[in-house]
Amino acid sequence: MYSESVTKLIQQFEKLPGIGHKTAIRLAFYILESPKEVAEEMANALVNAKNKVKFCSKCFNLTENDPCEICSDKKRDESIICVVENVKDVVAMEKTHEYRGYYHVLHGAISPMNNISAGDIKIKELLQRLSDDSIKEVILATNPTVEGEATAMYISRLIKPLGISVTRIAHGIPVGGDLEYTDEITLIKALEGRREM
Amino acid sequence: MYSESVTKLIQQFEKLPGIGHKTAIRLAFYILESPKEVAEEMANALVNAKNKVKFCSKCFNLTENDPCEICSDKKRDESIICVVENVKDVVAMEKTHEYRGYYHVLHGAISPMNNISAGDIKIKELLQRLSDDSIKEVILATNPTVEGEATAMYISRLIKPLGISVTRIAHGIPVGGDLEYTDEITLIKALEGRREM
Repeated sequence: MYSESVTKLIQQFEKLPGIGHKTAIRLAFYILESPKEVAEEMANALVNAKNKVKFCSKCFNLTENDPCEICSDKKRDESIICVVENVKDVVAMEKTHEYRGYYHVLHGAISPMNNISAGDIKIKELLQRLSDDSIKEVILATNPTVEGEATAMYISRLIKPLGISVTRIAHGIPVGGDLEYTDEITLIKALEGRREM
Repeated sequence: MYSESVTKLIQQFEKLPGIGHKTAIRLAFYILESPKEVAEEMANALVNAKNKVKFCSKCFNLTENDPCEICSDKKRDESIICVVENVKDVVAMEKTHEYRGYYHVLHGAISPMNNISAGDIKIKELLQRLSDDSIKEVILATNPTVEGEATAMYISRLIKPLGISVTRIAHGIPVGGDLEYTDEITLIKALEGRREM
C-alpha cells in the first residue's frame, strides 16, 4: 500500500514502545509532510545522542562526560549511595532537590521470570564502590515490585556484613492519595511503616 | 536534568504529533538503552523516506517513482477521478479494492480559519487534468467536515460548467453503527441521502 521507504519508516516508528501501527503511520506521514530539515534534525539527534551518551563508570548513570555530573559534584554527601533500578529513577530523585548523596544505577532488577539474575545488573560494581571506607549508608530505592523487593533484599544481605547501614525507602499512601482507593498491599505497607507522631 | 544530546533527542520526539513530554522521555530512553543499530536504522529510515519520496506530478500522491504506481496503472478506469484531501485518504480508498479509477490529492481543504485558500491546495492542478477529454466523472471524497464540504462545493462549481459529472460520496450512518448513538447531523445526512429500496 505504501512505497518501500515509507513502509520502512513506519516499521521503525512501530518499534518504539507504546507506538502501534496506526500511530506509526501518523508519525511517518508527519515526517513526509514536514520540511526536509525536520527529518534530518531528528536523524541527527538520534545518532548524536547514541554516540555521545555513555554510562558513567562510577554510578552507571547516562552521561556525556565520564564521571557524570553527579559523581563529579564534590559538594555532595559522599557517605550515602542511593541504589536505583533505572536512569529515569535518578532524574525522579534529583527533581526532589532533597537528596544530596550519590547514586548507583543497577540497570534492572533481579527477575528470574525474565532471565535476569544478580550477575546481569550492576551489583558487583556497587560492592566494589562500597570497599571505599567513606560510605556509611546505602539507600535501596528499587521499585516496590516483586522484582524490586527481591533485588533490595538480595543487596541488603550482601551489604549488611560490611557494617554499612542499609535502608529502604518508605512505601505507603502517596501524598494526596485516598485511603478508599488505595490497594490492599499499599495499605499493609503503610500500616507496617507507621511512625510515632 | 538530562545531558545536552539527550535533551535534544527528547525535544525531537516531542515535536511529533501526539507525543507529549513524558512519552518523548520514554522514547528517548528506549533509544539510549537499545543497541546503536536501532538509532542508526531509524535515522536512515527518516532521511531515506524524506529523500526518496516525492509527490506524483499527476495526482500528488506520495511516491518514489513519478508518475506514481496508481497513475501508471493502465488497467484503471481513466474516466473517473476521485478527489481526496490527503494521501492517507488514497490508502483508505484503495483498501476497499472497489474503486478502480484514478485519484487527485488536494493536500488540504479550503479553510479560511487556518488561512488556507483555494490557491493553497491542488485545485488548479485538478482543473488542468480535467482539460483531458477522457474524464467523465469527478467523485468528491473530501471529508464530511465544514472545510471538506466547502472545498467540495467550491470544486463542484468550477467543474460543472465543463460538462463533467460531479458526485459526492454518501454520508450517513456507518455500517455496524447504531441510530441511538448517531449524532444529529449524521442522521440528517442519512435521511437526506435516503434511497428507494
